[in-house]
Amino acid sequence: MRPEPRLIEVRRNVLKQNDIVARELRERFHSAGVFVVSLVSGPGSGKTAFLEQALTSLRRDYHVAALTGDLATENDAQRLARSQAPVKQITTGTLCHLEAAMVRSALDGWEPQQLDFLFIENVGNLVCPSSYDLGEDLRLVLISVTEGEDKPLKYPSIFNSADIAIVTKMDLADAVDFDWETAYNNIQAVRPGMPVFQVSSKSGEGMEKFLSLLAMRLADLRQAVV
Amino acid sequence: MRPEPRLIEVRRNVLKQNDIVARELRERFHSAGVFVVSLVSGPGSGKTAFLEQALTSLRRDYHVAALTGDLATENDAQRLARSQAPVKQITTGTLCHLEAAMVRSALDGWEPQQLDFLFIENVGNLVCPSSYDLGEDLRLVLISVTEGEDKPLKYPSIFNSADIAIVTKMDLADAVDFDWETAYNNIQAVRPGMPVFQVSSKSGEGMEKFLSLLAMRLADLRQAVV
Repeated sequence: MRPEPRLIEVRRNVLKQNDIVARELRERFHSAGVFVVSLVSGPGSGKTAFLEQALTSLRRDYHVAALTGDLATENDAQRLARSQAPVKQITTGTLCHLEAAMVRSALDGWEPQQLDFLFIENVGNLVCPSSYDLGEDLRLVLISVTEGEDKPLKYPSIFNSADIAIVTKMDLADAVDFDWETAYNNIQAVRPGMPVFQVSSKSGEGMEKFLSLLAMRLADLRQAVV
Repeated sequence: MRPEPRLIEVRRNVLKQNDIVARELRERFHSAGVFVVSLVSGPGSGKTAFLEQALTSLRRDYHVAALTGDLATENDAQRLARSQAPVKQITTGTLCHLEAAMVRSALDGWEPQQLDFLFIENVGNLVCPSSYDLGEDLRLVLISVTEGEDKPLKYPSIFNSADIAIVTKMDLADAVDFDWETAYNNIQAVRPGMPVFQVSSKSGEGMEKFLSLLAMRLADLRQAVV
């Protein structure tokens, strides 16, 4: 009764079109020498707090900027602007993910070659963003200790589409009896070998280690381009 | 470039078809005298813990059962089965919401007229489930204190599609500096007059008050049917 085949066909067209735009973006970013990091997670996992810290720290040594997606409100752009980095909000209306074309439009008026790092914060959703390439070099999936250890098993696609997992709100780990070993094993079960960082935006724990990785990756990118 | 008009048309057909099935389900539930409650929230907000408590308490006086949706794993059905209530898992694959037809299929072999309450736990997602009527009498939207007070403003559609908001993990409110007044006002800004309950599955706080409301609603339903 449900027009399933037609729906799938339309979805394939959208994804194919998205991949084309994402490839253009990636080429543009690489030739500009900017390293692009996207963030995905469920609502309230701490993407914005993590990103605000990253922008604030990186700004001391690098040129950084951020795009942030949400269905409604400019709240996240306002929060991120406290880092003093350039930030633009993308509001998606009812759409549960960002698409490469939205990123391209949001870049209007910005010169990627003046940047070292560009961050793209996706809509809070552990399902929809997984299929949409945004031209990023590195995709982070964040889960907070308060969400429980089973999320990688329950949302395998998003973990498979990401490069690094970040476990946030480590300061609350004891209060919620968070079992690190189980969470780590669940991540590895879904995506063997995935690097996992533990952070707390409240205490600052783990942030420096992650930012060192970003600095190395930027150096690698520029070496490859030259 | 993107075939937007065609996508919207297909989406409308899917929703129209879903509404037809949801209406059939609602009629079937009402004539069976079963009160149906659905739960939506982001991943890790505590839907399953809340539902396990509700099933365990209600089982003493009522016939209860639950359907629980997830992309992958049977984890939630296993957790809910500890309540001793009949439970079925619906796995959606890559789909970020339940549809009425999935509920209908999952009911195969069950007799709704033998039930007082049926619970339907949706996939953890604050976007996709909002447009899909499941034939329920009452839709609960859950947010945990750890997710922050701004979620109603950022995900207005899901709050608008729900009847009651449940703020979970109240035991962690102090640890995360949760601002109840702001959260409450944000809910009311999106959906004026929406009843809001505060609960903690850890301490049991607030559960009894919510279950009294369910008992009253069941009585109302049966009075209306007779």
